[in-house]
Amino acid sequence: MKVLIVGATGTIGRAVAAELGRRHAVIAVGRSSGDIRMDMTDAGSIRAAFQKVGRVDAVVCTAGHVKFAPLEQMQAADFDIGLRDKLMGQVNLVLIGRESVSDGGSFTLTTGVLDSDPIRGGASASMVNGAVNAFVMAAAIEMPRGLRINAVSPGLITESAEALASYFRGFETVPAARAALAYSKSVEGAQTGRVYRVS
Amino acid sequence: MKVLIVGATGTIGRAVAAELGRRHAVIAVGRSSGDIRMDMTDAGSIRAAFQKVGRVDAVVCTAGHVKFAPLEQMQAADFDIGLRDKLMGQVNLVLIGRESVSDGGSFTLTTGVLDSDPIRGGASASMVNGAVNAFVMAAAIEMPRGLRINAVSPGLITESAEALASYFRGFETVPAARAALAYSKSVEGAQTGRVYRVS
Repeated sequence: MKVLIVGATGTIGRAVAAELGRRHAVIAVGRSSGDIRMDMTDAGSIRAAFQKVGRVDAVVCTAGHVKFAPLEQMQAADFDIGLRDKLMGQVNLVLIGRESVSDGGSFTLTTGVLDSDPIRGGASASMVNGAVNAFVMAAAIEMPRGLRINAVSPGLITESAEALASYFRGFETVPAARAALAYSKSVEGAQTGRVYRVS
Repeated sequence: MKVLIVGATGTIGRAVAAELGRRHAVIAVGRSSGDIRMDMTDAGSIRAAFQKVGRVDAVVCTAGHVKFAPLEQMQAADFDIGLRDKLMGQVNLVLIGRESVSDGGSFTLTTGVLDSDPIRGGASASMVNGAVNAFVMAAAIEMPRGLRINAVSPGLITESAEALASYFRGFETVPAARAALAYSKSVEGAQTGRVYRVS
């Protein structure tokens, strides 16, 4: 398989690239590094990346930014950051990329544990994760040509846990390599419309 | 209690106004009718409405629009309609209205059964409903002054079912008056961070 990994140089992305790279041709996509550059908030940039890459069998996205701040300080513009980046960035990967994915191929998007286990300052992350999870569930029943779509909702990643510890007290951590297995299940399995919770 | 109902002239809104109006002072808010006019996609209009109304004890929103279309035809701009209207319209009601709600008061937002039971053409509705549900869950833990926030996720409303039947084959229907009870529970009870599924 030819697998496009958007966010391949991030903590989760590297683990997914390592896992899938054992058996498949991985194309690493990043905002400022990787085989191909892509700004997922820019539809033109997504289009250009798919034109460069041609047909692929799977698209994995482990990228996506949201603003973390106390709800008291959050305004509409702060929520818009996550809506444009982690939500519509990932949705646009599907809307634009679907023509480039071969029959039976898959999209695997990323949400996270805040979809169901909120923290202070995480209202935008929760909102966006909930939106992506529900989009995946709904889009799955309308995908053409046997295309599949799933989300992975990982817990706090062990490798990132130290830097984020004060926000995530009491959260168990998940090694990136373990989260990567869920991406493998999505890409190499046959399920669709699923949210894989790895926590 | 003084209860602001945004969307009070819609099918669900009328039932909520009838239920809460037995015991409370209801202020009906609509885009083009009601005691007060408000365009919930316009932050200035939300601000103006709250200035007119002054302090309230509860804000209920039963309004919110999304685009329904086959996923194949949906582009980013089509998803933006729901993000600006049913999602950020409701979120802005909270962000702007929170200063006007008295201690211990509540916000009750509306999602819908497509949050977990998708139909063809409903990817945007599912996405937005999932986003609002997750926002409510997360915002609840950060609300100041004992403010509460819940969502009601009603099934297909009996009164609207005939017009929508071809999209919702096999869905059981819920009389608007029964859905209204969940709004009553949110406004008059003490729970927060809940999604009340009425189906």
